[in-house]
Formats: sequence, structure tokens, C-alpha cells
Amino acid sequence: MTTTRTQVGIVGAGPAGLMLSHLLAQNGIDSVVIDNRRRVEIENTVRAGILEADSARLLVDSGVSDRVMREGHAHEGIDLRFTGESHRVDFKALVGESVWLYPQTDVFIDLANARERDGGDVRFGVRDTAVDIAKPAIWFTDSDGVRQEVRCDLLVGADGSRSICRAQVPHAERTHYFREYPFAWFGIITEAPKSAPELVYAHSPRGFALISQRTETHQRMYFQCDPETDARTWSDDRIWEELQARVAGPDGFTLAQGPITEKTVLRFRSFVAEPMRHGTLLLAGDAAHTVPPTGAKGLNLALADVKVLAEVIERALLKADDDALDEYGPRALGRVWKAQHFSYWMTSMLHTLPGATEFDVRRQLGELQSVVDSESGRRLLAEGYTGCWPA
Amino acid sequence: MTTTRTQVGIVGAGPAGLMLSHLLAQNGIDSVVIDNRRRVEIENTVRAGILEADSARLLVDSGVSDRVMREGHAHEGIDLRFTGESHRVDFKALVGESVWLYPQTDVFIDLANARERDGGDVRFGVRDTAVDIAKPAIWFTDSDGVRQEVRCDLLVGADGSRSICRAQVPHAERTHYFREYPFAWFGIITEAPKSAPELVYAHSPRGFALISQRTETHQRMYFQCDPETDARTWSDDRIWEELQARVAGPDGFTLAQGPITEKTVLRFRSFVAEPMRHGTLLLAGDAAHTVPPTGAKGLNLALADVKVLAEVIERALLKADDDALDEYGPRALGRVWKAQHFSYWMTSMLHTLPGATEFDVRRQLGELQSVVDSESGRRLLAEGYTGCWPA
Repeated sequence: MTTTRTQVGIVGAGPAGLMLSHLLAQNGIDSVVIDNRRRVEIENTVRAGILEADSARLLVDSGVSDRVMREGHAHEGIDLRFTGESHRVDFKALVGESVWLYPQTDVFIDLANARERDGGDVRFGVRDTAVDIAKPAIWFTDSDGVRQEVRCDLLVGADGSRSICRAQVPHAERTHYFREYPFAWFGIITEAPKSAPELVYAHSPRGFALISQRTETHQRMYFQCDPETDARTWSDDRIWEELQARVAGPDGFTLAQGPITEKTVLRFRSFVAEPMRHGTLLLAGDAAHTVPPTGAKGLNLALADVKVLAEVIERALLKADDDALDEYGPRALGRVWKAQHFSYWMTSMLHTLPGATEFDVRRQLGELQSVVDSESGRRLLAEGYTGCWPA
Repeated sequence: MTTTRTQVGIVGAGPAGLMLSHLLAQNGIDSVVIDNRRRVEIENTVRAGILEADSARLLVDSGVSDRVMREGHAHEGIDLRFTGESHRVDFKALVGESVWLYPQTDVFIDLANARERDGGDVRFGVRDTAVDIAKPAIWFTDSDGVRQEVRCDLLVGADGSRSICRAQVPHAERTHYFREYPFAWFGIITEAPKSAPELVYAHSPRGFALISQRTETHQRMYFQCDPETDARTWSDDRIWEELQARVAGPDGFTLAQGPITEKTVLRFRSFVAEPMRHGTLLLAGDAAHTVPPTGAKGLNLALADVKVLAEVIERALLKADDDALDEYGPRALGRVWKAQHFSYWMTSMLHTLPGATEFDVRRQLGELQSVVDSESGRRLLAEGYTGCWPA
């Protein structure tokens, strides 16, 4: 067994783990990142992505890459659609910020390239990973089959919603908050031109639909469905009929159709683990919290976490500020709970709950009308969507 | 049987019916108002009241009375209290309007006096009332025991949530929207000085509480309870313990206690009947819609209804504009559904639902924090509370 000494051992080479490693390196802090997935595997996993302006700036300003500015698409607003009418929420005018349509897959590629360029120690495709959060240490078999040990001062669990690091925390020392939703999203990728220049969030008597974009030739769309739906049993025709019906209106808006190249059902839930620190273990990103996709907050929260985390780790390790790590959770959680509420709000305002009465639907329309008619309502939504929450 | 001819027959002499009769009289339109309650009975029914600025202005500007300005209390904001801390929402600063603490009972007294002063035909204490919405006509036995018939051009059902007028509408011609809430309010009146200068809306782990004011010597307070609660089984001590616990916090806020002179359990639900017009029948106020008390919207919606109604009736009867009555429902319902949503929002943000998980409670706190930290959030709440919804 080969033993490596490092200051910060990071489990998970997704955006949270890689960004943290990158930020730490800029402060001269050494880290090792491991992931049981192979790099090519992650690079080929299609993940949607809306980056808050602060997330895009972090990529650029920290020297990861400016590709988001060249290849991403700035979206200055969204379209809230109900009773077959479109209502634009103009983020730029309301809060002075845009969001960026830039897939999470590309964020990963940029980060993995930056770490490689800067000589970062990132081990993809490992297996049989184990951690000891008390020591702290990580053990794993690397992609060459060699058993490895990483001894570190601090351990970061950035290993996603099924975090093995989080699982090591004794039950008595943590609280898990969660909420399940009685519906899922039927997601497709279609080979078709864009149907709209910006994301369309549609409330309809048949349930929610989201019309998103990916490239000039491929588009992503979703519609609310029963969580038990088997995507394979849905023909392209049936999917298009459902999507078209959910966005139809007197303005004649229709979706540009094309062959459907991917069909998946995404279940989702809300989850928060507290505290985010347990001694020398720190949780970040999906390992600490997951959100329903309606608010497009998952990736952004992960990046916001590690921005705070890099700062407190720097103070703890370089300035021997023992209390610095205690600040991490409280500072990160303020944003996490606002994002949880925002995701819940967007979800509950736009989806039809099973068993919803006609009153509930009309009340939702009263809410949507209140939001679009009021500059305060639109701005509150814009603050949440762009992540520009006043403190 | 004595027959009276009038232009508008109004069933219900609450604020909606009396205000309508008053406004119609100012345009030279004749009406008869009936109510099965005696006037003294209504005058002695204690009803709380928060008047939107527009409601107070309507009382003054239409010449009913300026007593609200002399004896009511302008409230320029409310206190949103959670995790034991107070956060003021400053209506005056946010939307330039205040609300008025002025009991509904006093609104009734002002209106009844104004109708009496102006020679209005209002018959209290009638019985055996029947209506025919097709003729249209009203039959009743007056307080002297004389059977009466009122023949009219238009019939207005302002007869509250158990409206007999609404009951005459054929099922096929109407839709009733409703939602029940799995909790109620335990309401008390206490002989004590004010505990706070403005209304305190408190979220707490034990559920919602509302600290309200009535006079210098009597106060109204409420706390969320199980709908099956028997108010008589609660001792004063137990009530105070519960109320104090729900507002307690590190700032040491406590309620000024006194003898409890009234204990009641108020159940509530949301309800909307559509359309609001059926031929010559027009529904107004609680007969057309009820809201949970959390948003203090019931009386204000009733007055907003009749303001629109007086205008369309004037056009219909004096200018022979046959289409005018068709405008009533659509114009009134925009506000009704925004008020329904606002009432639901205040309710769902502040109450603890039976079966709520810890996630739900933390998400509520994330919502409350988002609202108080954001000027847009506070303004959206102020717009709803003061009834200053942007169109």
C-alpha cells in the first residue's frame, strides 16, 4: 500500500471537489481528489446546467476557464407561461444579472482540464474506497490496481447524494431533513432547433412543462409525470402530444419537433444534512444537500459551498485559525435554505399536485398573476433564480 | 302581503349589502336591504377588522363616516416573528400605504347609521326569507310579523357564506372552489394593555400565533390549534402558557396578561363561487368567497366587490348598458384570486401543518428569511396586506 500525505483529502471529483481543489491550490494548499468514476465516463454523462452569474464568474475569475463566456449562452430572463400566455421575467432589468446556459458536463471538463494543467492530484476510476473521518484518511484501489492510502489534515465529502463520507457520521451527531415530491420529470433530448430563445416554465391544466435549450441542434425538454412512469413505453408521438398540449395557447406557441434521442424519468427530492462539519470532515455540494431541479440550484449551491469552504480551510490551515471551520456550515446553510425554499416555491407554484382540487389550481394562477403583475414579485423570483439573494 | 317595488333588492345587511345600498343611493338608485339578524344583534357581535387604506377611504370619501380616521388606528406595518426574533415589514415605506385597525362591528355601525341618516330602506330582524332569482323577488316576514314582497330589477346576494341567494343557482351553472385547512384558530379577548404597537405574526415550533390589538384595555390574540379543540376545556393559565411560548425569544418579548373574557375556536376555509353573476342575481362578499383570516382580507374583499358592483349596476340601470353587469365578475375575481393566494401564502408560511416534517419547518424559515432579507419580498407582502396589488 502506497501512502500519500496531503493537507486536504477530497472524496468526489465532481464540480464541488474539483473546484475546491483548484481554489485551495491557488492558496498553496495541497489536496488529493479521488472519484470512483472514470474521467471519460463523467465527460460523457449529459447533465443540464444553468449557472448563476456568480458561478460563471468563479470559473473565469479563479482562472479555471473563460469557455463559459465564449460557448455558454447568457439568458437575461425566463418565460413564465400560464393560461396559455407568456410572461417574461427580465432578470437583467430586475436585478442586473443574467444566468448562463452551460451544461454541468462542460463545467466538469473545464475543471478537470484546469486541475490537469496545474498539476493537481486527481485520481479517477478508483474503487473500494473507504474513509475514516476520525483519523482522517482515505483508502482506495487506484485505476492501476494499486492499494492507496491518503492521510490528510482535513477530509472533504464532495461525493454526491449517496456520500460515503456522510455515512460515517454517527447518527446522534447529525440531522437529515428531507422531503419527497409525489411527481417526477419526464426528460427528453430532441434533435430539433430551439423552440424559444429562453427557458419556458409552463403551468398547465395537464401539469408542468419546461422547455430548455442545449445547442442549436439539440434541445432539452421536461414534463411533470407520475414517478412510476416507464419512459420506454412512451412513443415519440405521445411525448410530443403531451408537451405541445402543455404549452399551447391562443398565441399559437408550438414546439419545434424532432427525433427524440433520450428519454428518462427523473425523480427528485429535497435533502439537507446538518451540520456540514463534523470535526475534520466537511461536506459540500450534493453530499450535504439536494434540491429539486425546478430552481436550477444544485450545481450553483455546490460551487457556493466550496467558495466558502476554500476560504475557511485557508484560514484554518495557513493562519491556524481553529474557529474558522465552525463558520462554514452556518455561512453556507443560509444560502442552502433560501435555495431550498426557492426550489420548493418554483416547484409548488408550477406543478400540479396529485389530488389538487380546482381551488388549488386557481390559487396557483392567482399566485402566478400576482408575481408577474408585481415588479416586487418578479424581482423576488429573479433574486432566487440568479442567486442574488439580499443578505 | 305588502309589495314593495325597488330597483335593487339586497339580501344581507352586513358591510357589503349596506355599502352597496349606500353607493347606489348616491347615484339615485333605489334599493331595499333585508337581514334576518336584528340590528342590535349585529352591533354586539365582536368582529375583528383590519381595513385596507382603500376600504377606509371608501368609508370616508363616500360620506359614510370619518370615524375610522378618528377612532381607528393606522398601522404602518406588521411584525413577522420567527426563531424568536422580530422583523418589521414597513408598509408605509414599502408601498406608501397603511392599514387601519378598526373592528368590522364599527364598520357595520357606521354603515347602518349612514343608511338610517339618508333614509335608506333597511329591514333588520326579518324571518322566513325566500328569493326567486328568476323573477327576481324577495319574500319575508318583517319584524312586525307582516309578510312582505320586494320586486326588483336586480337581486344582490350579500348574505354571507351560507347565502340563500347562491343556493338558488342551478348546479350546472356554477363552480364552487374550496379548500379546507387542517387547523383552526383559538381566539381570545383579554382585558390587558397592548403587548405590541402593531400586529405580531409569529411562526414558532409550536405553531402560529397572532397578537392583535383592540383597544387600550382589551386585546385580541389567536393561536393555531386542532380544529376539534374544545375552547371551554382550556384554562386561562394554559392559554397564556401556550401564547407566551409561541412568541418567546432571546429579545425577552412577553405578552401582557389579563383575565380572558372570551374563548372561541374559529375554523376556516377558502371558498370561491363562480360566476358572480347569474342573470339578474349578483353575489358579493362572503356569499361569493371566503378567505382564511390570516391575510385579513374578508371585509376588504366585500367592500372591493360592491365598489365595482355599484359602478356596473349604475351603468346597467341608468345608462341601459346591458353588458355592464358582465364585467362585474371578471373585474372582481382578479382581486379575489390574488387575495385567496395572499391568504394562503400567509397561512402556509406561518402555520405548522399536521404531519409537517422538520424539513418543512426549516423550509418555512428559509422562506421567512428570504422575505425579510429582501426588499422585494417585504414589498410583495406589503402589496398583499394593504391590498395595493399592481394590476
